[in-house]
Amino acid sequence: MKPDPVLAPVLSRIDASQPEALERLMELLRIASISTDPAYAPQCDAAADWLVKDLQSIGFTAEKRPTQGHPMVVAHAEGPENAPHVLFYGHYDVQPVDPLDLWERPPFEPALEETEGGTVIRARGASDDKGQLMTFLEACRAWKSEHGALPIRISVLLEGEEESGSPSLVPFLHENAAELTADIALICDTGLFESAVPAITTQLRGLLGEQFTIRGASRDLHSGMYGGLAGNPLHVLARLIAGLHDENGRITLPGFYDDVPELSDEIRAQWQGLNFDHGAYLGDVGLSVPAGEHDRTPLEMIWSRPTCEVNGMWGGYIGDGFKTVLPGEAHCKLSFRLVGQQDPDKIHAAFAEYIESNIPEDFEVIWHESRGSRASQMAIDNPAFEQARQALSDEWPRPAAYIGCGGSIPIAGHFKEILAMDSMLIGFGRDDDQIHSPNEKYNLESFHKGTRSWARILAALA
Amino acid sequence: MKPDPVLAPVLSRIDASQPEALERLMELLRIASISTDPAYAPQCDAAADWLVKDLQSIGFTAEKRPTQGHPMVVAHAEGPENAPHVLFYGHYDVQPVDPLDLWERPPFEPALEETEGGTVIRARGASDDKGQLMTFLEACRAWKSEHGALPIRISVLLEGEEESGSPSLVPFLHENAAELTADIALICDTGLFESAVPAITTQLRGLLGEQFTIRGASRDLHSGMYGGLAGNPLHVLARLIAGLHDENGRITLPGFYDDVPELSDEIRAQWQGLNFDHGAYLGDVGLSVPAGEHDRTPLEMIWSRPTCEVNGMWGGYIGDGFKTVLPGEAHCKLSFRLVGQQDPDKIHAAFAEYIESNIPEDFEVIWHESRGSRASQMAIDNPAFEQARQALSDEWPRPAAYIGCGGSIPIAGHFKEILAMDSMLIGFGRDDDQIHSPNEKYNLESFHKGTRSWARILAALA
Repeated sequence: MKPDPVLAPVLSRIDASQPEALERLMELLRIASISTDPAYAPQCDAAADWLVKDLQSIGFTAEKRPTQGHPMVVAHAEGPENAPHVLFYGHYDVQPVDPLDLWERPPFEPALEETEGGTVIRARGASDDKGQLMTFLEACRAWKSEHGALPIRISVLLEGEEESGSPSLVPFLHENAAELTADIALICDTGLFESAVPAITTQLRGLLGEQFTIRGASRDLHSGMYGGLAGNPLHVLARLIAGLHDENGRITLPGFYDDVPELSDEIRAQWQGLNFDHGAYLGDVGLSVPAGEHDRTPLEMIWSRPTCEVNGMWGGYIGDGFKTVLPGEAHCKLSFRLVGQQDPDKIHAAFAEYIESNIPEDFEVIWHESRGSRASQMAIDNPAFEQARQALSDEWPRPAAYIGCGGSIPIAGHFKEILAMDSMLIGFGRDDDQIHSPNEKYNLESFHKGTRSWARILAALA
Repeated sequence: MKPDPVLAPVLSRIDASQPEALERLMELLRIASISTDPAYAPQCDAAADWLVKDLQSIGFTAEKRPTQGHPMVVAHAEGPENAPHVLFYGHYDVQPVDPLDLWERPPFEPALEETEGGTVIRARGASDDKGQLMTFLEACRAWKSEHGALPIRISVLLEGEEESGSPSLVPFLHENAAELTADIALICDTGLFESAVPAITTQLRGLLGEQFTIRGASRDLHSGMYGGLAGNPLHVLARLIAGLHDENGRITLPGFYDDVPELSDEIRAQWQGLNFDHGAYLGDVGLSVPAGEHDRTPLEMIWSRPTCEVNGMWGGYIGDGFKTVLPGEAHCKLSFRLVGQQDPDKIHAAFAEYIESNIPEDFEVIWHESRGSRASQMAIDNPAFEQARQALSDEWPRPAAYIGCGGSIPIAGHFKEILAMDSMLIGFGRDDDQIHSPNEKYNLESFHKGTRSWARILAALA
């Protein structure tokens, strides 16, 4: 195959400028932009400022836009007349870092490390999503440097609240619909299927997050004076959680599976062809037994079946030593992953009914914020999908696959509903990136070949 | 009844010196002697020093004795020739204070407060056990000031590890058995039956404390990437806890009730005569439904039936905001209250077997310290019991009762086993003292009439 005279010098420039690109990413990773914790608001703001400056240095008109929460970064660069227009989306905020004592190095002091899987960039946000979003910016930078202009018209939207439920996103999309609507969206927040197999994610689970408190006695009690007589909210919470799944791993809420579709034969066949090695996938994290619905394949469990997972629970004395307390309260954070046409509001109602009707009569439930997003399913008949899949296949050792994703990236649904725009979810993360966990990393290869992949996709879409 | 010419001036002196007695108690309450948290070791030491000095000021020979943990305070005062010898026991350590934000005032800045139930001393340790132990010391001080000598021979043992399982106590009793053995022990760490009804506690539940961790994945996982496939240790812990009680409130461990006796007809009749108002007892803490074994009376539930209560559990993300984590570990602190001949070692073995055999095969359990003590039953045919009961009845509006106690004061068992000595458990705490909870208090009346009660008991035993 003859090298593309337009693309080839861009790829060469990407290769040659890797050290500078890496240094820029390290700078961004040093900013502790944790969006869930209000104490880190200044750092979120600083990350937005840094990105505005970086986009301007590439040649975008870029600015920080205020919201009720953390700011949005919006940028635009013109392309040739009649060229397609894409909206690129990423997020600059990161997950909290606790438990901090499990980190092998400070989470906001990024460094390169040699590992069995190759060289990695170790830091909170390295993979989710700073490393990923920078692959796109670096591709644009290389293209602009080489050719003086981009091959298509590009808008950029970088969010600072993705890890805290994106409360400002929907209003912002509504208010700026005309400015942000493009022919298609590019979302860089997903992963490779395997280290050699790039992927375009075409279905995403939705998410419903719940937080509630079970309150029994009006104060903490002495377990000797009251134990055996006063109800224990920790026991009540345990029974409620235990009752959410039956012995076959199915969720017990009435009507929960009503809007859950079966896989199409085509997708089922495609997924079977992926030869997913669930033993290795679980083995990497020290497990071996698939814990979901007994009659489903492991890939269905994580990509196309709904789940209910407790993300945190606590109550009573949790410090050092022992305290014979019978506590007044128990707390729980829990999330459902939704698929198909499951409606977060309907699931919330069923869940609230389950909890309220299964507590002792002298107990009460205090509901904290609940919020949800539906699952997404992309329209892969849009020709951009095949163009991008071919471009990815050219860069990586093996052809690109259309895959599902167990995570929830509600932005794709919002783009469809508010901006009437399809999304291509293309990312270069790996399963072992430990996103949301201590010691998050991003492979240097993901960063490098990811940047090259975007250059190829820009060429393919042009 | 003619006033006793020996006792009457002692009681008058107690009444007259209440302000100074209260100031001394306040001083002791200002020392944050939390024994479970190693950070407070200096304060435990300071509390021991304060007590040594105070005992010396009364006329005891007193000293601080080192142990592997916090020191013991040991003191002696001679009495008339052939007078009985009693060993008084109390503890100077206190419970932790969290959750600190529920305290209405700093826990170690004691103050008097007017409440509907009368004037109270508000501070951590006011009731458990500093206020209680000082009633005895103040009675001795008044007697000594009035008569120049005590009416009986008195030894004092004040411990600093009662709230953290008394690890040094048994070795200390063995090493100092000859010095500490008396005719009978007086233990001041229990309560009144009702505000007008004093009590001698004649049966105490034992305690078995367990702490363990359920470990699933080798690290925290993303609930989108792994949810539905990887086992969740929070779910496993919830199922384990939920399975510990059946639908009738009985504990499900095999053999758990083997060594649990039924009440004697005599004790059952006596307890029925107490007319325990469980509605009021639960109502005080915002509850109404007895939560224990369905076929037992409320008084049995707290005094004579074994229990299993989770004292603390935690895992996953428990900070502000939301984190869609599927954690690698879940933690639990749990305690059994034991009765009759239940053997802590046997119960521990049954519990460990239950946990180990009910976790998924790719999970593991990490056991932390487990420790237990048996229940105690006093031999009330010792005439000292009737002497003390009469003395208490003389002081309070209504006659004293022999009662049970749901709490665990293993010292009584140790005195019996190691020093072959019976114990009289006499205290003046109230059910609403909020011991082990925020806003602990001790009624000024408990402090005052408690001191007078001890003077009467010393006279009765003389």
